[in-house]
Amino acid sequence: MALDGVRALVFDVFGTVVDWRSGVAREAAPFLARHAPGTDPAGFADAWRRRYQPAMEAVRSGRRPFTRLDVLHRENLEAVLPDFGIDPARVPPAELDELNLAWHRLDPWPDAVAGLARLKARHIIAPLSNGNIILMTDMAKRAGIPWDCILGAEVARAYKPAPEAYLRTAEVLAMRPEEVCLVAAHNGDLAAARRCGLRTAFVPRPLEHGPGQATDLAPAEEWDAVAPDFGALAEGLGL
Amino acid sequence: MALDGVRALVFDVFGTVVDWRSGVAREAAPFLARHAPGTDPAGFADAWRRRYQPAMEAVRSGRRPFTRLDVLHRENLEAVLPDFGIDPARVPPAELDELNLAWHRLDPWPDAVAGLARLKARHIIAPLSNGNIILMTDMAKRAGIPWDCILGAEVARAYKPAPEAYLRTAEVLAMRPEEVCLVAAHNGDLAAARRCGLRTAFVPRPLEHGPGQATDLAPAEEWDAVAPDFGALAEGLGL
Repeated sequence: MALDGVRALVFDVFGTVVDWRSGVAREAAPFLARHAPGTDPAGFADAWRRRYQPAMEAVRSGRRPFTRLDVLHRENLEAVLPDFGIDPARVPPAELDELNLAWHRLDPWPDAVAGLARLKARHIIAPLSNGNIILMTDMAKRAGIPWDCILGAEVARAYKPAPEAYLRTAEVLAMRPEEVCLVAAHNGDLAAARRCGLRTAFVPRPLEHGPGQATDLAPAEEWDAVAPDFGALAEGLGL
Repeated sequence: MALDGVRALVFDVFGTVVDWRSGVAREAAPFLARHAPGTDPAGFADAWRRRYQPAMEAVRSGRRPFTRLDVLHRENLEAVLPDFGIDPARVPPAELDELNLAWHRLDPWPDAVAGLARLKARHIIAPLSNGNIILMTDMAKRAGIPWDCILGAEVARAYKPAPEAYLRTAEVLAMRPEEVCLVAAHNGDLAAARRCGLRTAFVPRPLEHGPGQATDLAPAEEWDAVAPDFGALAEGLGL
């Protein structure tokens, strides 16, 4: 694999490291059973997640100052509840705060933690996620994800795929962009990283969006590395 | 110990977690042997460190935009070399860059790593250092320091003891100041943290400045916790 000279591996997290859809569905199930019995928790997770990009776009476009993802998730939660017949004003705020922490409690894909431990032997490993620092920290602590440090949108003060998210991450690492490789399950994220000079590794996650997923099943460009999971990526790097 | 309700322990690092004086002296010794034979490496470490506070003060006072510590250390290195009869212009820049990484290669005090591992069982543990993210990350990776995340001046964009350094750290953690405890070997750092509402734990390091140290040997106020080392701090917290 063409990752010579790479010193840091930075990772997309939602979808690439953790299975956000199953995790949010699991966390939301008791809430939905109380407030909207019969609701499909996975469909609720999808609906909540659909408001993710538009919320960040308000920041990326400059319409809104940088606001961390926990805050956007909380706003999106209140916005999505009426679609399921729930009036957010009738739910105690502490219960919504608690549900909002679903994103802190996502499980890694089965290969992720062991693969990261291997990759860590030679590289600095860090999230380059749009998730904020405490979200990533809580998630890692619960799941045993062995990050060397927490990077990403809150450190860069910019949301992917804005170039600043990638470039400021390399700057914080005191590395040239080509010394940093983004590992992601999303071709769009990798394309944005490549435009900034980062190296790229594609690890498809064909179940991120549940059965029947149609996107990001195959590499859309010749990425520097392609592997079916983190263990195979470590293997390919001789680790 | 009165640390009920504390969820995160944040640590001063230079002096409190690691022995910067011995480490810088060790790293500088071969350089000094080449360029200024006979120089006492510990004295050189002290002289380099004496330029630390004035350099940060330029940022704290607003005379200079936030600049990470690696850059300040590098400038301070060039400034201090003439005091030892070395003309920095006659040393290859790569050699100075390498020496500047001495701060990334400091050894923890003997109790630190094991104590942090115990404290981590119940608390989020993170540096709240004036050292920048890659400095802290390199140091932790080399020494096996098990931080949950890297916080501090570069995340807060402010140098201790400016209030923003403490308050923005609590904000990033999504905690009230009183849910965060600063652990430090320096009474001044703890006093500044207390003024911001953080809890405080004093762990003296009587050899930080070498034999004959006269400062910070005893608590200057009634800190919330006082312990002779990190193991005793964990013990006192029932961990």
